[in-house]
Amino acid sequence: MTISPLQKARYQYEPKLPGMLRSGVDKIAVKEGEPTQSVADQETIKSLFPNTYGKNEITFVEGESTASPDKQVVGVILSGGQAPGGHNVICGLYDALKAASPENVLIGFKNGPSGLIDDDFVVFDDEFIDKYRNTGGFDIIGSGRTKLETEEQFKVAADVAKKHGMNAIVIIGGDDSNTNAAVLAEYMAAHDTGVQVIGAPKTIDGDLKNDDIEASFGFDTATKTYAELIGNIERDANSAKKYWHFIKVMGRSASHVALEAALQTQPNICLISEEVAAKKMSLSEIADYIADSVEKRAANGDNFGVAIIPEGVVEFVPEFSALIAEINELLAGAKADEFNALPTWKEKYEFIKNGLTKESFEVFDILPENIQQQLFLERDPHGNVQVSLIESEKLFSALVANKLKERKEKGTYKGKFSPLHHFFGYEGRCAFPSNFDADYCYSLGYNAALLIQNGFTGYLSKISNLSKPAAEWVAGGMPITKMMNIERRHGEDKPVIRKALVELDGKPFQFFADNRDNWAVETAYLYPGAIQYYGPEEVCDLTTKTLKLEQE
Amino acid sequence: MTISPLQKARYQYEPKLPGMLRSGVDKIAVKEGEPTQSVADQETIKSLFPNTYGKNEITFVEGESTASPDKQVVGVILSGGQAPGGHNVICGLYDALKAASPENVLIGFKNGPSGLIDDDFVVFDDEFIDKYRNTGGFDIIGSGRTKLETEEQFKVAADVAKKHGMNAIVIIGGDDSNTNAAVLAEYMAAHDTGVQVIGAPKTIDGDLKNDDIEASFGFDTATKTYAELIGNIERDANSAKKYWHFIKVMGRSASHVALEAALQTQPNICLISEEVAAKKMSLSEIADYIADSVEKRAANGDNFGVAIIPEGVVEFVPEFSALIAEINELLAGAKADEFNALPTWKEKYEFIKNGLTKESFEVFDILPENIQQQLFLERDPHGNVQVSLIESEKLFSALVANKLKERKEKGTYKGKFSPLHHFFGYEGRCAFPSNFDADYCYSLGYNAALLIQNGFTGYLSKISNLSKPAAEWVAGGMPITKMMNIERRHGEDKPVIRKALVELDGKPFQFFADNRDNWAVETAYLYPGAIQYYGPEEVCDLTTKTLKLEQE
Repeated sequence: MTISPLQKARYQYEPKLPGMLRSGVDKIAVKEGEPTQSVADQETIKSLFPNTYGKNEITFVEGESTASPDKQVVGVILSGGQAPGGHNVICGLYDALKAASPENVLIGFKNGPSGLIDDDFVVFDDEFIDKYRNTGGFDIIGSGRTKLETEEQFKVAADVAKKHGMNAIVIIGGDDSNTNAAVLAEYMAAHDTGVQVIGAPKTIDGDLKNDDIEASFGFDTATKTYAELIGNIERDANSAKKYWHFIKVMGRSASHVALEAALQTQPNICLISEEVAAKKMSLSEIADYIADSVEKRAANGDNFGVAIIPEGVVEFVPEFSALIAEINELLAGAKADEFNALPTWKEKYEFIKNGLTKESFEVFDILPENIQQQLFLERDPHGNVQVSLIESEKLFSALVANKLKERKEKGTYKGKFSPLHHFFGYEGRCAFPSNFDADYCYSLGYNAALLIQNGFTGYLSKISNLSKPAAEWVAGGMPITKMMNIERRHGEDKPVIRKALVELDGKPFQFFADNRDNWAVETAYLYPGAIQYYGPEEVCDLTTKTLKLEQE
Repeated sequence: MTISPLQKARYQYEPKLPGMLRSGVDKIAVKEGEPTQSVADQETIKSLFPNTYGKNEITFVEGESTASPDKQVVGVILSGGQAPGGHNVICGLYDALKAASPENVLIGFKNGPSGLIDDDFVVFDDEFIDKYRNTGGFDIIGSGRTKLETEEQFKVAADVAKKHGMNAIVIIGGDDSNTNAAVLAEYMAAHDTGVQVIGAPKTIDGDLKNDDIEASFGFDTATKTYAELIGNIERDANSAKKYWHFIKVMGRSASHVALEAALQTQPNICLISEEVAAKKMSLSEIADYIADSVEKRAANGDNFGVAIIPEGVVEFVPEFSALIAEINELLAGAKADEFNALPTWKEKYEFIKNGLTKESFEVFDILPENIQQQLFLERDPHGNVQVSLIESEKLFSALVANKLKERKEKGTYKGKFSPLHHFFGYEGRCAFPSNFDADYCYSLGYNAALLIQNGFTGYLSKISNLSKPAAEWVAGGMPITKMMNIERRHGEDKPVIRKALVELDGKPFQFFADNRDNWAVETAYLYPGAIQYYGPEEVCDLTTKTLKLEQE
């Protein structure tokens, strides 16, 4: 197999463990903390998790090992979208298991949770594992989006575990997958299967975060990759001085990625979905907000700029969500046929005009025609608008162009506006993990093995104090139920891990808010450059600005 | 000014000069080589450049300095699109001038060649220069696309030079800008202005390359940046196993960027415009070529892949060029109004059907409707189709989807095809220069100062032996006229530097051609990762595969 020089070099990297885990698996003891309670809806959650609720938080300390001497057979699953460092979670888990005993076994189930149900697996050995150390991607065993949530699935999972003699399953996933891990843990405990379930917090979106989980893995590397590209584009904008770049970044439900990218690159504009929702901003208000920056910069002779747009932002615009709901209603059932039968867009447009409320039609009417058509012509199998397909970077640049046209007519704006569009997502999900993510992920996996060997279940592997050097990191575990509350999902009340949105009174957003008026007008760009794995510490061992500001 | 940690660290980087330039400007002598001749049309070129034609190639050697002791006042211009390393050319030039005498002056003309004509300038000093060392972008003085090519402009340039007491101008640009540098040099010599003109070979496209110029600067860094992103996407494709990524990369007239990116990442498909032209491939043949890979991979259970599409490829498809020419003809003058007056696309389509030849209509008819419409609805001020706006990555994925539909009906293809699209260009033009580009550019600038001090004009700064370590590089100069021939441009015969296309019998393409059938079916992806500026030599001092293969 041919590999790149960097991949070869990264094989030699030795991930840094928290100091307390460095003296060997036989010198690590459990220190029990306080019993835990869920963040809300305690009674309900407790009743749903009678066997796993209320357990103690734990940390590891140096001391005589408290681990079980029994042979460990552990299964591992990668769940959901790729995030840099997933391979290192598996490597850390493998190394800790093998350090405890060469007899221990790690089984990887392929292509996500479905691999466990289908019993599609691989047994890891040194040769296999060594090819994936410190690399990006989830290609070691693949990932998948099947959800493990039904009793039938749990039963099959228990049977597969029994067949392999497994005593634990590690699920590497986001908030949904870890919610399901908690439910599976409860099932396994309730049915006396002897199978423990441990989760590891993954997602580039950064929305699996709370008082206990300081960061989900992959966020660091992915945002650094996006910031590299945004910084390069900023430098290009500032050299060519003729384009406004509208850059969409991944993040459907939370804007942590956009915010972190903005903190790293100081663009002229960055929309934050949570703020758009809180202020109930209209499309027109957002377009005016951006157009203000374009106008002010143009007055300084700067007909260029950079705006970051979080992927999901239109879903947070109340009037837009209302429009989408009306369209879905308007085209439900038989009316879709009536609409589809209309031969021209002009007739379709009249149908829409008559069918929508006045308010929603006004919103519809300011959209560029290609987006109007997309809303009506590209619908999912249930007839619903596919909001995720909307190219919001192009939507906003078109709305801004309209605003500028009006302002030109009024005489307040005299500049030139040439927009270019970008979308960054897939570029960062499988990058070689930064040193931070390589260390953090390896530690999460290593730590997961210790949680297993010490008999815990329904816990999330927890490494904290992350803005400090790895030697000062704290390793332990937190019952997943502690992070749960009850939310309405698909018409049902469900116990779920609360998704972390950008907090508008939190330090990262506040820092942004304190500076953005200046950034909107000045050219205050920062150019982070490519992720460095070697070189000066302040370059290659940096964490995210979000984490730094949160922990300051 | 806040700067990123990498930018701060890069300020400390000391670019490596060719060994022969390391002993100080006073220990460098000129070694004259043979007189030169242009690569073609010798008599015509000679007659156009009576004062600068036929000069000797020169190299520098260690020895007693042969440079003029007079005070040097030099102007420098950045011309055309951004390329990583432009700042270092200026830094090298500045350092060599100041090393010869602190009295020497370097003047930067702003925003491209127009800055010279407008006398819009800055005088560099240490504090200014130090802020741009080893950084990307052209923001140090900006760039622009004004062409210096008329007598009037040359006269103004001579006056500005006289005003500043300048004895030389350095033009950092691509093939066109250096062609103009040669013409300007001839003008300055013919009019006894005492102003020398020296060029530096810039372009990320890699098409300013010949027997003398082994590489244009910026190609190394830009292609490494694109390869980083393509590799990350490949790893994502191979983890998620559900998308075909169609990735367009910059390169209008030559496919060096696409080829180098392919050599670094080994995707399933890479189109090379020069091959498409040589084989006179049709759109349908190209689509079949890609669909073959999709089909074979699907048969192995791999419903994912990566295809690289050079930006300009459709212009190399003979039938497509013919179609564009016909459309431009069809819509010339009054007929445009007739067409525009048609109210519906259906009527417009009939107009097109009647107006095109049968052959061209057949080509038109296989295009996806949005591209059909784009060809007719978005035209430049002269009424011509804007070929550069065509989203060729989406064009080819749509054509491939049609082919697969046919094959599914025939029963030969049973897979799933979900395409995603990307375009990489602006992401790489202003990256921090790789160590190679940082060294190469600094050497080009340093060397340009030596050419000036030794009285040369109409030369391109030349650094060769580039696939070897910098200590073994060879510094010198080559008369620009040597690289020229006569070409038809805008209806006129012009002396120009011959643009380097991908040579289909050259080693880089041959290596690709020898391996691509395997890459089309197997998953042989390489993941180069982000550019490293520090760390193991084999990671951070690597040159391009193109250069390595060419010089092997």
